[in-house]
Amino acid sequence: MSDRFCFIDALLKRPVSRTPVWFMRQAGRYLPEYRQIRQQAGSFMNLCTNPELACEVTMQPLRRFRLDAAILFSDILTIPEAMGLGLSFKEGEGPCFQHPLRSEADIEQLPRIDPESDLRYVMDAVRLIRHELDGKVPLIGFAGSPWTLATYMVEGGSTRDFKRVKTLLYDRPGLMTRLMDKLSDAVADYLNAQIAAGAQAVMLFDTWGGVLTPVDYQNFALKAAHKVRQRLNTGEGSERIPTILFTKGGGQWLEAQSQAEFDALGLDWTCDIGQARQRVGGQVALQGNLDPITLYASASTIRERVADVLNSYGKGTGHVFNLGHGILPDVNPANVETMVEAVHELSPAWHQ
Amino acid sequence: MSDRFCFIDALLKRPVSRTPVWFMRQAGRYLPEYRQIRQQAGSFMNLCTNPELACEVTMQPLRRFRLDAAILFSDILTIPEAMGLGLSFKEGEGPCFQHPLRSEADIEQLPRIDPESDLRYVMDAVRLIRHELDGKVPLIGFAGSPWTLATYMVEGGSTRDFKRVKTLLYDRPGLMTRLMDKLSDAVADYLNAQIAAGAQAVMLFDTWGGVLTPVDYQNFALKAAHKVRQRLNTGEGSERIPTILFTKGGGQWLEAQSQAEFDALGLDWTCDIGQARQRVGGQVALQGNLDPITLYASASTIRERVADVLNSYGKGTGHVFNLGHGILPDVNPANVETMVEAVHELSPAWHQ
Repeated sequence: MSDRFCFIDALLKRPVSRTPVWFMRQAGRYLPEYRQIRQQAGSFMNLCTNPELACEVTMQPLRRFRLDAAILFSDILTIPEAMGLGLSFKEGEGPCFQHPLRSEADIEQLPRIDPESDLRYVMDAVRLIRHELDGKVPLIGFAGSPWTLATYMVEGGSTRDFKRVKTLLYDRPGLMTRLMDKLSDAVADYLNAQIAAGAQAVMLFDTWGGVLTPVDYQNFALKAAHKVRQRLNTGEGSERIPTILFTKGGGQWLEAQSQAEFDALGLDWTCDIGQARQRVGGQVALQGNLDPITLYASASTIRERVADVLNSYGKGTGHVFNLGHGILPDVNPANVETMVEAVHELSPAWHQ
Repeated sequence: MSDRFCFIDALLKRPVSRTPVWFMRQAGRYLPEYRQIRQQAGSFMNLCTNPELACEVTMQPLRRFRLDAAILFSDILTIPEAMGLGLSFKEGEGPCFQHPLRSEADIEQLPRIDPESDLRYVMDAVRLIRHELDGKVPLIGFAGSPWTLATYMVEGGSTRDFKRVKTLLYDRPGLMTRLMDKLSDAVADYLNAQIAAGAQAVMLFDTWGGVLTPVDYQNFALKAAHKVRQRLNTGEGSERIPTILFTKGGGQWLEAQSQAEFDALGLDWTCDIGQARQRVGGQVALQGNLDPITLYASASTIRERVADVLNSYGKGTGHVFNLGHGILPDVNPANVETMVEAVHELSPAWHQ
């Protein structure tokens, strides 16, 4: 059996001959060829909304490294942008919404979007990338989780304290549930459209789930993620589309996450992946979890730390190697090569 | 028995008639009377280094609220400042060191400080506050943990990614251990001097322990905290000085923390305090853990959330009510009053 689709196999816990590897933000600023296209595009959103350019930057890391999956180049905030919140990116400040959600009416009036028309550029990019990949490796589609989208939509951009969105949750839990329900529908529609356009796995990024109390995480962030999952058209049998849930800072709640019917959970580096495997009782696959900062260390340190993650996970399938969070923009691509090659070299021993 | 020292009793797991309450940064910018003194002082460091003013702001929250402990007004970075790193605070940017640790020689040459002379202003403040408190409530002394101090000393200030300090740890673990050892000695000396000057409990703030991998947390941050603990002159019997370790983001590692010989562990709001109590097996007391953002919600929400924390901890001693992190500067003091009064009102039922 070829190992071309070992990424899909590992997520579905089928036997593999080595541990698959890809990493978050693999298409990104650490690559000089990315920076060139980004400059050409003029703005980050121009790059996201141009299917040819989005396809090109998606392919770039695959030309350099022996990666086992491509991930759609896009942004988690495409949905609120399509809902009319007016997204822009200020240099060095992150995303900013011109029309944040500031009242009950703002939430009630959020339109339902039709991803195939309202986010056509994303679906076109998916189709184009699938064509370009030509079956070499599978393509991952993705979306921001309902809770994570809500943080940006209510705060109006990035935040350190989540004051507005948490106060909404604390004082108006019913209204927050309405918002979660609307966003769950939108995210499910969006991921289903990506699947229809050709995405072969889908990942939900709950970047800010970890800032909540355990009860609020379960009642809002995780419940909404589960609702998304239940509405996904993942198919059956050998054609099944695997699903991944990544909650940054969610290491305390893996048992609860493992009940949300995703095939795999993403882990940040604050978890021991071997202990995580025991805690989820083999119910789900695990993706992760090298600290991205490891990529600033020496080649020998990188190899040791890759070995540590593989050793901790141990024997057998169900592990996709990844960073514990996105790669940083000033990493040396040679260090990425060291990491990827170490996974290729060291992982087969765990699958004999 | 008077409940004046219920804070100390709860930390040492002696019976109490109600749950004691204080909160991190209770002397701070949310109080108009603090802002007035702060302006008068000219700079934050002027305020820290003036014992009379530090004493005054320490006392301010006790005049407003029924709190069960005072905490020395100071900063966690007094030690590196005394070591000659040149601390300043830039408005809106946080702390900045003029001479960060950038080489092996910088680390090897770090001087050993004598807290009673080099940080005399802190000890004078402790003595003055004890005099002012006049036995009303106990005084908490504190220090930044060795790891947390190292992050600022190596990075040169605040950081989001901990790139320099983690790369040092990853590539030069022996040198990082040397730095941890030097800082463990300095922190222990500093806390012992605070105890000698009158501190009745001491707390170690490991604000950035939670950014490490589990193995690095244990081998560096926690090991250094344990070394500090072992060198503390905490006395014996009824005069014993209780010790508290607070690792923000450390909820996954409570079992390990509970082995480090502190009397109590601080919890942020991402833990369920009842589950935490089970996990540490009653070995240590727990301090926490209301989300500070709760203080922006309505009075009824604040009361409900206080009740949730008390209910989750359950019956018996060993709980000190606190926020899960420092109060934010724009909280309405009336909401603080609501929180403190809710603890007074609701907690006696759990101690009958």
